[in-house]
Amino acid sequence: MNYKVDLNCDMGESFGAYTLGHDADILEYVTSANIACGFHAGDPATMRKTVQLALEKNVGIGAHPGLQDLVGFGRRNMAISPQEAYDLTVYQIGALAGFVQAEGGRLQHVKAHGALYNMAAKDAALSQAIAEAVYKIDPELVLFGLSGSEIVKAGQKIGLRTANEVFSDRTYQPDATLTPRTQSNALITDPQTAISQVVRMVKENKVRTVENQDIEIQADTICIHGDGATALDFAVEISRTFRDTGIDVLKVQEFI
Amino acid sequence: MNYKVDLNCDMGESFGAYTLGHDADILEYVTSANIACGFHAGDPATMRKTVQLALEKNVGIGAHPGLQDLVGFGRRNMAISPQEAYDLTVYQIGALAGFVQAEGGRLQHVKAHGALYNMAAKDAALSQAIAEAVYKIDPELVLFGLSGSEIVKAGQKIGLRTANEVFSDRTYQPDATLTPRTQSNALITDPQTAISQVVRMVKENKVRTVENQDIEIQADTICIHGDGATALDFAVEISRTFRDTGIDVLKVQEFI
Amino acid sequence: MNYKVDLNCDMGESFGAYTLGHDADILEYVTSANIACGFHAGDPATMRKTVQLALEKNVGIGAHPGLQDLVGFGRRNMAISPQEAYDLTVYQIGALAGFVQAEGGRLQHVKAHGALYNMAAKDAALSQAIAEAVYKIDPELVLFGLSGSEIVKAGQKIGLRTANEVFSDRTYQPDATLTPRTQSNALITDPQTAISQVVRMVKENKVRTVENQDIEIQADTICIHGDGATALDFAVEISRTFRDTGIDVLKVQEFI
Amino acid sequence: MNYKVDLNCDMGESFGAYTLGHDADILEYVTSANIACGFHAGDPATMRKTVQLALEKNVGIGAHPGLQDLVGFGRRNMAISPQEAYDLTVYQIGALAGFVQAEGGRLQHVKAHGALYNMAAKDAALSQAIAEAVYKIDPELVLFGLSGSEIVKAGQKIGLRTANEVFSDRTYQPDATLTPRTQSNALITDPQTAISQVVRMVKENKVRTVENQDIEIQADTICIHGDGATALDFAVEISRTFRDTGIDVLKVQEFI
Repeated sequence: MNYKVDLNCDMGESFGAYTLGHDADILEYVTSANIACGFHAGDPATMRKTVQLALEKNVGIGAHPGLQDLVGFGRRNMAISPQEAYDLTVYQIGALAGFVQAEGGRLQHVKAHGALYNMAAKDAALSQAIAEAVYKIDPELVLFGLSGSEIVKAGQKIGLRTANEVFSDRTYQPDATLTPRTQSNALITDPQTAISQVVRMVKENKVRTVENQDIEIQADTICIHGDGATALDFAVEISRTFRDTGIDVLKVQEFI
Repeated sequence: MNYKVDLNCDMGESFGAYTLGHDADILEYVTSANIACGFHAGDPATMRKTVQLALEKNVGIGAHPGLQDLVGFGRRNMAISPQEAYDLTVYQIGALAGFVQAEGGRLQHVKAHGALYNMAAKDAALSQAIAEAVYKIDPELVLFGLSGSEIVKAGQKIGLRTANEVFSDRTYQPDATLTPRTQSNALITDPQTAISQVVRMVKENKVRTVENQDIEIQADTICIHGDGATALDFAVEISRTFRDTGIDVLKVQEFI
Repeated sequence: MNYKVDLNCDMGESFGAYTLGHDADILEYVTSANIACGFHAGDPATMRKTVQLALEKNVGIGAHPGLQDLVGFGRRNMAISPQEAYDLTVYQIGALAGFVQAEGGRLQHVKAHGALYNMAAKDAALSQAIAEAVYKIDPELVLFGLSGSEIVKAGQKIGLRTANEVFSDRTYQPDATLTPRTQSNALITDPQTAISQVVRMVKENKVRTVENQDIEIQADTICIHGDGATALDFAVEISRTFRDTGIDVLKVQEFI
Repeated sequence: MNYKVDLNCDMGESFGAYTLGHDADILEYVTSANIACGFHAGDPATMRKTVQLALEKNVGIGAHPGLQDLVGFGRRNMAISPQEAYDLTVYQIGALAGFVQAEGGRLQHVKAHGALYNMAAKDAALSQAIAEAVYKIDPELVLFGLSGSEIVKAGQKIGLRTANEVFSDRTYQPDATLTPRTQSNALITDPQTAISQVVRMVKENKVRTVENQDIEIQADTICIHGDGATALDFAVEISRTFRDTGIDVLKVQEFI
């Protein structure tokens, strides 16, 4: 039997007159799309079009709620309370679900964006609030989060299916967190090294940390970046490698 | 058999540190609540609290989508396309539906706010777009709109149940439109005259226009204002009069 | 003596993570930059960088206030009052002037953006409000506006210097207004025709309308578009033609 | 010779249809007004009216820049960079200065709002960025900040006049910081105790901390709250006590 993994990508990050990303191209290679919901990026028109595109390509649709910080693209930590995290998550999932419903589709998953993702990974109370928001809207939704982090734990605890997310182009610390981008060794820039890292995470559930030890890691879904000149090339390459090495790329809902 | 009518009121118009309206008090008297969805007023926390309050009081919950003009409270006409009207309606209904779902409730209706309401009343293309947004999200929803206006026609055409809304404190033109607020005779300031006007609209389906003729008018739901010092007094008074004159005040979904 | 004309271009329209336009390149060819002020486009960081760039290139700096409609890029008409137009103009000029002052420069002009520009061109009351905002902040500022339109008249009346703006790539109606973009003959797509039109406007103060008659037109400044693949080519081409035909391209403050 | 102190109050925090505070009343008692600039509260119309009111009352006008978090009223910490702090400060000071200039007045001071104020008090890099923004716009401006904190130091270092702000209704820690609101002893609720604390700070430059020791503190300006039922009573009371005990209440620019 083949290994199974999901490829996810942030999408629908255009806003008004501003275009970002190469959604239509990337959608050929990924199995799950995290669609921005208007707080950190995205707008109603973009959400509609991105949902339509994802449905056409038969890609799993996820809400991608972020902090209400459009000018900062939701990347700046904000001291929000768990209640505020719950509220903004419900609002944004609901808004995207409106478009999915209008198009006759069904929401597959939720993945927090940027600073909200990073804060939740370490903060049990924030994670619990987000998990509760997801669960109360629809207990069938899959909650995505950094592999092994608080958000995954919170999702499991409340009874949601969860998808442990791993990164191909980021290095790992001994505690399975990502090396902060402020450190020089945070990024893996060589595509082959990046691909080898994820193949090993999928097949062996192991990753070599920056301190040169192996740790256990669960890899249900892999984050593919949607912008940047090489994003598409990388998506092509990782897809081919997976096919060649016996890893099936499937929507997360088909194997979780 | 008694006459039947719904009383609706705009709600959830607070925002962040700003409080507006007397929602908890007014909810004792109305049967349908139009809850702001964050574009012209409202925010995620306010939406959650207002939905909870409406469910406690067993009041019909409606999404109240408006133009994205927070500083103008959605009251300034904007040259939006039908597609834009569709998109912002889906977004806002979805967002509110998220909170309703999370609280275990069910959305009853949709009523456009302010400038969007007024523009749609006269614009068949805008109205069709709004009706389509409502229908595609959930064909069971009731669409509220100015009695006899384009939005009601659009709703009927697409197959939605509609609620013809009338106003107690506004005078009517011979074509059943409201006298514009820019005219001196637009408002009915005497509470008894206002109440008599709606009683007659409900029982006889007639209203006396500013030109002193009777016209036909359908009155399924009556708009009650939620702010202003006398709003609550008026709600009390109209409720009592209705009870005394054989008019049942019911959620619109119970008789439409 | 040579003819004199100013070339202006909208700039600083990036926002947060979103990049728009080719400001640095275009700044080599224009003499006046209209910098977005955060309402329809632009943000504080973009404003600072664009001001710095314009000062480096010794280009005249203008505030480019727009409607508060980021998702619509300030292109959708809104029913704002003259007082609201005054207020949003003061706010945005002030905000940009802050950056200009911080960099040791001086604001040269003000040009309304998009729908605000178009509405003001036809609306004397809006125009008067905008002109008053400009005048009260600094009576030395130059007010840009559609050649011969209400905004130019309002500026002159209040005592401001004004710059009549003409378009190279738009056709003209007999009343000197631009042919609406909704009409098929609104745009001049051939670069040589576009350049010939402006050369004639500058040298002869005449333009041939869509009805094939000549009308008088004053051309103090020409609008160059900053985005689109051919924007830069056009800027290069028009600059060369001007040099070759005895038209000096100068900051508007140097000859108005 | 009498002691001298300034009384300042946050103002202009209304937004669109939302009214907050009792600006006109409070302006009778304070000497400096910190006017919101549209990021955490306030809008162009409110800014204009508040500036006009402050000029009428001959109160010193200050810009009150905050984080771009309207729904959170600028009270939630955000991980902004010093460059971002610089940019948003320049933008907001500029915007307010536009209204002050248009009304023929002159800006007196700048005081950061809410989370920006609190973060800057402890963060030398943020404080330096804010001080630089103020200085580059106008080196004559007075920079307000928590007495003895990083922002005051940054202002002094760059060459600005500074006003050390103290609080009547907050208790102090041994290091002269305010007791966090999360602690039960953070607030002084008895008006007489509050007034005694500030009288002593003004006359003796001393305050008794929560650990019951006296520490040195400089009191150039006292923060008066503008909302809440008792705000006005307190302003009346503190003004009378000052008059009776030989403390002159003056605009900060008159004695700093």
